[in-house]
Amino acid sequence: MTSWKNNVRNVIPYTPGEQPKKKVIKLNTNENPYPPSPLVGKAISDVSMDSLRKYPDPNCSSLISAIAKYHGFDDENIFVGVGSDDVLAMSFLTFFNSDRPIFFPDITYSFYDVWADLFRIPYETKALDEDFKIVASDYASDCGGIVIPNPNAPTGVAEPVEFFEKIISAHPECVVIIDEAYVDFGSESCIDLVRKYDNVLVVRTFSKSRSMAGSRIGYAVGSKELIKYLSDCKFSFNSYTMDTVTLAAGVASLEDDEYFKARLADVINTREWTKGQLEKLGFSFPDSKSNFIFAKHSSIPASDIFEELKKRDIYVRYFSKPERISNYLRISIGTEEEMQQLINTLKEITN
Amino acid sequence: MTSWKNNVRNVIPYTPGEQPKKKVIKLNTNENPYPPSPLVGKAISDVSMDSLRKYPDPNCSSLISAIAKYHGFDDENIFVGVGSDDVLAMSFLTFFNSDRPIFFPDITYSFYDVWADLFRIPYETKALDEDFKIVASDYASDCGGIVIPNPNAPTGVAEPVEFFEKIISAHPECVVIIDEAYVDFGSESCIDLVRKYDNVLVVRTFSKSRSMAGSRIGYAVGSKELIKYLSDCKFSFNSYTMDTVTLAAGVASLEDDEYFKARLADVINTREWTKGQLEKLGFSFPDSKSNFIFAKHSSIPASDIFEELKKRDIYVRYFSKPERISNYLRISIGTEEEMQQLINTLKEITN
Repeated sequence: MTSWKNNVRNVIPYTPGEQPKKKVIKLNTNENPYPPSPLVGKAISDVSMDSLRKYPDPNCSSLISAIAKYHGFDDENIFVGVGSDDVLAMSFLTFFNSDRPIFFPDITYSFYDVWADLFRIPYETKALDEDFKIVASDYASDCGGIVIPNPNAPTGVAEPVEFFEKIISAHPECVVIIDEAYVDFGSESCIDLVRKYDNVLVVRTFSKSRSMAGSRIGYAVGSKELIKYLSDCKFSFNSYTMDTVTLAAGVASLEDDEYFKARLADVINTREWTKGQLEKLGFSFPDSKSNFIFAKHSSIPASDIFEELKKRDIYVRYFSKPERISNYLRISIGTEEEMQQLINTLKEITN
Repeated sequence: MTSWKNNVRNVIPYTPGEQPKKKVIKLNTNENPYPPSPLVGKAISDVSMDSLRKYPDPNCSSLISAIAKYHGFDDENIFVGVGSDDVLAMSFLTFFNSDRPIFFPDITYSFYDVWADLFRIPYETKALDEDFKIVASDYASDCGGIVIPNPNAPTGVAEPVEFFEKIISAHPECVVIIDEAYVDFGSESCIDLVRKYDNVLVVRTFSKSRSMAGSRIGYAVGSKELIKYLSDCKFSFNSYTMDTVTLAAGVASLEDDEYFKARLADVINTREWTKGQLEKLGFSFPDSKSNFIFAKHSSIPASDIFEELKKRDIYVRYFSKPERISNYLRISIGTEEEMQQLINTLKEITN
């Protein structure tokens, strides 16, 4: 007799960056070192218990309106989800429905090929050049869709808006997704291209720049037509995803722009300081416009530095594959004090 | 030139029960009329802002342990998700991976066929009998999986554990999902069958009995092997779904069992009172073990009663399709006062 085990979907689960339970300097998951605005805490405490017994607003109107207003769009240009992973997965499902392959970089966010496999979307990866830059001509031929993070991860390398506008305008046959998870840390946003092209979707998250990884909020900005397709697809199989408390927390974050921009400036300043220090210690890296630096040392293997840091309770991210990046460490930008301690420790290790 | 529109997934979006913005008596979405335990509010307010900047625990350990302890299982027997919709969809994806059709009732939760279509799972629906009861012999042949809610929705009809044990023990070739969204309102749970059969998955939600529809918490109880497959599948494409605040709220709900059981008793008492009143007014209904009653009137069409109630700011649920249930209303159980007002209004309408 057949067992139910023969009919189970067998997968290789993704391994997220370690979330150690002891107190460490945690520079391994690109979290913001600063808490969100105090207004977020107030909004969370203010949610009434009576509202929890009811289903959340399935349209997430309050959060969608706040995001639309923040970026100067209409509500119909905005889609929200449970982190940008949810938004991106839903976008793959909705828009990448062609027989032709979709294109994305070979070194990039590790979930793109996972979602493509999940939804049986054919794909081709395009190799970054030796400076970890995206080669625009690789994205010229007709395809089923394109997804590129800007800045790219885990490299931190950004391209200007013109670079993406050429790709978007050349591809009316497909949707081009620009994944701007890290854009607030100093690179140009493609968000204004949404006003000009109906085939571009810009995806953002509250996890990094808004210090709210714990809340799971992501969103997309696109033409009204694009957003309607995306919403219809989402509503066709799950009506209620964003919970009531999270919706309130997201709105509050957008209300405190001064706090937001001050913390962004802190992270950017610390990143630039860290770059100088790392160079002095023999590290090289592509110029990062994100809240992490992707660095290799001139003589010591990345895996050794990773282990030595870990022994001293400093966690950074090390990807053993692919080969081409196996000598790099992805170091998230922490507070000034944390980065000072990182640099001091790296001095010991590299001496 | 092809447009991107040719490659978009076109769907018919689900229409959830109305969430009116004005003050109404809302008996249309099976929400609990009572707020969750005060401990839930305290837990939410107590979440530190510093914890929000970090990713949530991807393993949801605190909530999983609390659920395991509550039901007397090990942590490895529990899976959690963003509402039972998320848990069910993930279970369909993981376990219903055969070429043979899965079976579920023809009148049942409206998302089963939606997920089957989404994941390209073949399915066959099995007709309820004239009393809206599930016919066990319909589920006898080899299949790709079975999913049955107990009590069933929108009928409210429950079956005893023996009924399901026969089905589960006859189907080692597939996974049998018992969807117990409404079980706390007075029917027998199949949860103990998990100790005996490795192919049964019991799915629960915090949305109804725990008054936390606004929080989006669902879970599954199954053999360790089953739960491992489910977790691996989930982690293969989305690491972080449950947010930090929600995890804390869920744990707190489980800690206040006295409050939980007292509110359950309130809803059950009000349901039984409502049944008697509805009968006096000429309504008939299958005996409900849930927090709603699925009723038709002896002479007035359901659609007319629905409209008349709506005019008077009382919202119940009316499904125009399928034909067989088009003369029924699904009435959620509200507070005593709300149901008194419903009955008074129905008296006017039916006179």
